[in-house]
Amino acid sequence: MDAAFAQVEALVFDMFGTVVDWRESVATGVSTHLRDYLPSLDAHEFADMWRAEYQPAMEQIRNGSRPFTRLDVLHRENLETVLDRLDIEPSTIPSSVLDETNLTWHCLDPWPDAVSGLTRLKTRFIIAPLSNANVRLALDVAKRAHLPWDAILGAEVAGAYKPEPAAYLRTVEILGLQPDQVAMVAAHNSDLAAAQAVGLRTAFVHRPTEHGPGQTIDLEPVGDWDVVANDFEDLADRLV
Amino acid sequence: MDAAFAQVEALVFDMFGTVVDWRESVATGVSTHLRDYLPSLDAHEFADMWRAEYQPAMEQIRNGSRPFTRLDVLHRENLETVLDRLDIEPSTIPSSVLDETNLTWHCLDPWPDAVSGLTRLKTRFIIAPLSNANVRLALDVAKRAHLPWDAILGAEVAGAYKPEPAAYLRTVEILGLQPDQVAMVAAHNSDLAAAQAVGLRTAFVHRPTEHGPGQTIDLEPVGDWDVVANDFEDLADRLV
Repeated sequence: MDAAFAQVEALVFDMFGTVVDWRESVATGVSTHLRDYLPSLDAHEFADMWRAEYQPAMEQIRNGSRPFTRLDVLHRENLETVLDRLDIEPSTIPSSVLDETNLTWHCLDPWPDAVSGLTRLKTRFIIAPLSNANVRLALDVAKRAHLPWDAILGAEVAGAYKPEPAAYLRTVEILGLQPDQVAMVAAHNSDLAAAQAVGLRTAFVHRPTEHGPGQTIDLEPVGDWDVVANDFEDLADRLV
Repeated sequence: MDAAFAQVEALVFDMFGTVVDWRESVATGVSTHLRDYLPSLDAHEFADMWRAEYQPAMEQIRNGSRPFTRLDVLHRENLETVLDRLDIEPSTIPSSVLDETNLTWHCLDPWPDAVSGLTRLKTRFIIAPLSNANVRLALDVAKRAHLPWDAILGAEVAGAYKPEPAAYLRTVEILGLQPDQVAMVAAHNSDLAAAQAVGLRTAFVHRPTEHGPGQTIDLEPVGDWDVVANDFEDLADRLV
């Protein structure tokens, strides 16, 4: 086992892109719910546009201009923003349909190695998501996909969105551990950099198609991460 | 299925006494860790004395005279209080031994029907503890005993101890539900009364030996609870 992990008791996981393939799942959900209202819909493009509103929405909360608001609410607002950008008046679509479309984010499929890898990692470590997803979103994803989490942690429990230091440090505190006893697992270099900056251990997992076949970011680890793995089975091979 | 539960999506559980047999487990742990230091120890009496400090310690936080403090810290303080009451100077016992003894509360055995009953209830409902235990305590108990929770909720996540209304209502909010979509499951009439007062559904489960063979309280349901069950298997028979 990697020496940097000798003291580690808990692995905390980014979720969107690292555990689940949000892009394919959201494209499927959008296609199901909105095709009747958007005849020329490109579901993958729509998913990308929706995801593009994710960081700006959280930024209002990180910079203090808005109180903490759970991701379900931000996703619902962002859905209307995307429709506006496509020159579709949101009020032309029944709000019940938009609500159902928003729940697409609760029905994300895991990468094929996620459940089996997590099940192995759980034998040695506490495993929990440390996602910007709210608890109910992460819970619904886990229940549907049978992700074997020991707890649902993350931004809502910490009261702060990643990459704010408090998102990591409050999670560490709730786990009753020191920062170097917790490792952040993510497919995103920026997430690992923020976790490392406050003392957590780090594991990069390759997810080269999170953004589709033309992905240009996070194709390689860019940082001094403690472990780099091809997927969760490979991570379990290295750590369990 | 009981009509009152037609709208219920989540069951939240009291833990100490309802899911786990804290008295036998704590007596065993105390006996293991403290026998060398307390030759005349009555482990069950010690467990009862330790538990007796539980409500007074939380009361300081409920009445606002102390900021929210997790139960692990209160248990550790209460352990020294019990030693004082037994005329044992806590400093005569190594603090590492007291710390280990305190972790007894992380190693509580479930009642025999708990895992099988929860596994069946989980097929129809979201299931989570709504305990005054802190997250790490509840997580350790669950991981050791294989309790199949969908999430670890409770006082620490809500930032308030039961029976404060906020403990119930913040949990309902985190679950993204209305109060009547959540049912409190407990072996304690007072817990159910507080949950019912803020709109939750209620299920009383008989645990007639939580306090040992001479138990005098909570032997019968005292309130207009929506369901009364003999154990978690019986609860599953009624609800799933």
